[in-house]
Amino acid sequence: MYNNSMDKKISDKVINRLTLYHCILQDFIKSGSEYISSKQMAALLRIDDSQVRKDLNLLSNSGKTRVGYPVKELKKSIETTLGFSKNKKAFIIGAGNLGMALAKYDNFSNYGLNIISLFDNDPEKIGKEVNNKKILDIKDLPVLVWKHYVDIAILTVPACYAQNLADYLVNMGIKYIWNFTPTVLKVPDDVQVWNENLMGNFLQFTYDIK
Amino acid sequence: MYNNSMDKKISDKVINRLTLYHCILQDFIKSGSEYISSKQMAALLRIDDSQVRKDLNLLSNSGKTRVGYPVKELKKSIETTLGFSKNKKAFIIGAGNLGMALAKYDNFSNYGLNIISLFDNDPEKIGKEVNNKKILDIKDLPVLVWKHYVDIAILTVPACYAQNLADYLVNMGIKYIWNFTPTVLKVPDDVQVWNENLMGNFLQFTYDIK
Repeated sequence: MYNNSMDKKISDKVINRLTLYHCILQDFIKSGSEYISSKQMAALLRIDDSQVRKDLNLLSNSGKTRVGYPVKELKKSIETTLGFSKNKKAFIIGAGNLGMALAKYDNFSNYGLNIISLFDNDPEKIGKEVNNKKILDIKDLPVLVWKHYVDIAILTVPACYAQNLADYLVNMGIKYIWNFTPTVLKVPDDVQVWNENLMGNFLQFTYDIK
Repeated sequence: MYNNSMDKKISDKVINRLTLYHCILQDFIKSGSEYISSKQMAALLRIDDSQVRKDLNLLSNSGKTRVGYPVKELKKSIETTLGFSKNKKAFIIGAGNLGMALAKYDNFSNYGLNIISLFDNDPEKIGKEVNNKKILDIKDLPVLVWKHYVDIAILTVPACYAQNLADYLVNMGIKYIWNFTPTVLKVPDDVQVWNENLMGNFLQFTYDIK
């Protein structure tokens, strides 16, 4: 993974922390603060402030001053580095509660994620709209992948349909599958899958509960 | 983080991978397979098979034989190590689409996560049921935290309410907040927060898209 503008490697962990700093900066801007210190961000995330400074040094211009980082500039710099202005088009596959929740999540577009429409096979759902996005018949997916040049699919179907649908998506030219199903998908080497492993996260975070 | 039965450290990354092996094993059992190799699991997750073997060596009894790992025994061993039989009670705070999706997710109980009920402040929702779980008035939370000894809250409210609700939950004795809102919460040191940083994940996985 490379940040093209600077040819510096940015690891997954750093990307993850940068988005959390970004959340903090949004809150600071809302509350009217002009500057923020690495210590303030570190305290909120319970990490070391040297880690925060190291991460922010990777940005092309963090704007660091003697009184701290100017929040607006720092926010902008994170957005540039992480490519928030890129338009990444995606379909949601499965218009159940989770698919609907993701479709309603307006915040996505701030990060460059543009959800074009949802797909389902339930006649009761097909034709309806969620947050200005249409629920379409899964059979019409092939045409729409090509029409909109979409290569990201967000998979929110029941686990038992996940592999069959993944095969179908791959055949239609989808290259990135954001997998919210509790299934490990088998896909060709040129297709990227991100497993949103909710139970893994839950178990990590509650592991010390007796 | 310690696995008490063996006093061995299990890192967050290993816990995450163990839950993915567990998903794979469930699929293998469904398809009638009796044995699985570290190579098969590694290929599905695109990791090195030496990594899989190293992880499985941490289990008290992986059951490894010359023809591979017996799937049922291995699955059981992962469940024991990760404490799937512990009963971890939780409330969902926010009965919107995401809260509903999580309430309907039957798979949770297999991992020891027992969702008692949902809470909301919308009179239209209060009193209704989702997947045999009642949607209750957020005002009644204090009594129910004590009645059921719940210390985990799953926060699925709009971002603008997140911090206020987190303060309320902490005051009521909640010790673990699974945070699905795009907000970095300020909580006392003895409260654990897991940020389900969806946008961070999305940006990691699509970072190479031009």
